[in-house]
Amino acid sequence: MRAISRAITAIENASPEAEKLVRELFPHTGRAAIIGITGAPGTGKSTLVDRLAAHYRRSGQSVGIVAIDPTSPFTGGAILGDRIRMQGHALDAGIFIRSMATRGWLGGLAEATAEAALVLDAAGKDVILIETVGVGQDEVDIVRLADCTLVVLVPGMGDDVQNLKAGLMEIADLFVVNKADQPGTDRFERQLRAVLEIVPERDGWRPPVVRTIATENQGVSELAGMIERFGATMQAGGKRSRRRIEHWKQRLVELLHRRLMLRVGRHLDDRQLEVLAAAVAAREKDPFAAVDEVLTKAGIE
Amino acid sequence: MRAISRAITAIENASPEAEKLVRELFPHTGRAAIIGITGAPGTGKSTLVDRLAAHYRRSGQSVGIVAIDPTSPFTGGAILGDRIRMQGHALDAGIFIRSMATRGWLGGLAEATAEAALVLDAAGKDVILIETVGVGQDEVDIVRLADCTLVVLVPGMGDDVQNLKAGLMEIADLFVVNKADQPGTDRFERQLRAVLEIVPERDGWRPPVVRTIATENQGVSELAGMIERFGATMQAGGKRSRRRIEHWKQRLVELLHRRLMLRVGRHLDDRQLEVLAAAVAAREKDPFAAVDEVLTKAGIE
Repeated sequence: MRAISRAITAIENASPEAEKLVRELFPHTGRAAIIGITGAPGTGKSTLVDRLAAHYRRSGQSVGIVAIDPTSPFTGGAILGDRIRMQGHALDAGIFIRSMATRGWLGGLAEATAEAALVLDAAGKDVILIETVGVGQDEVDIVRLADCTLVVLVPGMGDDVQNLKAGLMEIADLFVVNKADQPGTDRFERQLRAVLEIVPERDGWRPPVVRTIATENQGVSELAGMIERFGATMQAGGKRSRRRIEHWKQRLVELLHRRLMLRVGRHLDDRQLEVLAAAVAAREKDPFAAVDEVLTKAGIE
Repeated sequence: MRAISRAITAIENASPEAEKLVRELFPHTGRAAIIGITGAPGTGKSTLVDRLAAHYRRSGQSVGIVAIDPTSPFTGGAILGDRIRMQGHALDAGIFIRSMATRGWLGGLAEATAEAALVLDAAGKDVILIETVGVGQDEVDIVRLADCTLVVLVPGMGDDVQNLKAGLMEIADLFVVNKADQPGTDRFERQLRAVLEIVPERDGWRPPVVRTIATENQGVSELAGMIERFGATMQAGGKRSRRRIEHWKQRLVELLHRRLMLRVGRHLDDRQLEVLAAAVAAREKDPFAAVDEVLTKAGIE
């Protein structure tokens, strides 16, 4: 567990060893099932992830959890952390939990998450649960990494299902209505199903709706069963590998970005960037002219 | 209004004229006050933005609104749109409302939003309201553009204030507790203030909490007053220009990214990217080797 932890830290810090590490691990990856879990704060995602993890452990599978903290470019993390929840699984060597936050401009959160998943995959975890909040571009990117994506909702969040945005609809392979003992659950589920009917099927699959009460462990094994059914459907149609190729297309573009930025960074330190930005803010220089200057210095274009 | 609209469309589509356009507009920008409004779905942000806009209009200021749709890389938009809300202001030439969605990998949403704001700024809008959802990296980037950022909360979202993440705390210049007629408002505000006390002051300012009931137009002019007070405080301390320089540092990095990706794109069409991604997904090639191949072909490094 310590080795996994160190490897992920190296990745988070974009340390020089990280690339070498990922390169070495890479041939040993591709085996784990990656499940993405997303939803707004307060939907009980973390509890659901814990319960799913426990379910997989009971069936003898090893589990890795990557929990993405809402992004803070400043402190990199949640105020109150999630140390408490980790304690529940602390004694189980078959489970590994890691929180991640954003990094600076040299690499993206989606990329760090994908690399952390590679580490857990190479370490032999059977199931990797990636927990993320909301549906910003970060979340959409992260979710592309998953073989199966759960969107967690609760009855009564926002005014009704009309607040569900297209982004959620399009990343969800399964909808989970958690806290299903709350009033309004029936109405909420009915509305959700009505909206789902007008969304086109994707890969021959229409996202089902599963009810859970994660705090009471209700509906969790049904959810796991549905995840498995989704996996079997995708595998049968060759859709899983199609999805993985799409993921790698995106990841290669991100890697290209990082390589290029490292190259530019060698010719542009923070002080020089500051001087250029001040000239632009003062309208002494337009932003495109500033950028052209940098590229010329870096010997590109 | 049609000219503004066309200009923003050119930016969204990253069309060849967009850069020329921004370059020409640029010397005429820097005058508008840019206000960012962020918050989870269901917090009533859009209504609040509408009411704020109406407030500024009554005081004789022209207003531009850029509403960022929850990001969908597929359809680029919300299911139900916000056409209805636009109708309320449709006859007022002093107000311009535009929804934006994400773009492809050649440019970011934050960048497109910033450029749309430049267009509105050059068009002479006094106040630009930028409305965005949640706190993914996108939102943080977008918010960096604003001279003043409001975070909109409602009592009872999530279980309590502990669900507020550091990201929100650190981008907020002002907190708005909207729907302040809901039960639990007092308790929620008390908790929020308690959390705010432990957050360090930034730029000599501790984010105040303003209550609103946007649907009934309550608290809106108090909010506008507080925004003005914040602006005066920042202006006095030279903090506004400091913030704008920080914004441009980030924007220049984004522009560099776009330039470099355009260059790479000339040597890597989608079919070639697909072939590389398939090789990586099959573990025939590691992702770093794939990227090195592309850069060599593009004559970089």
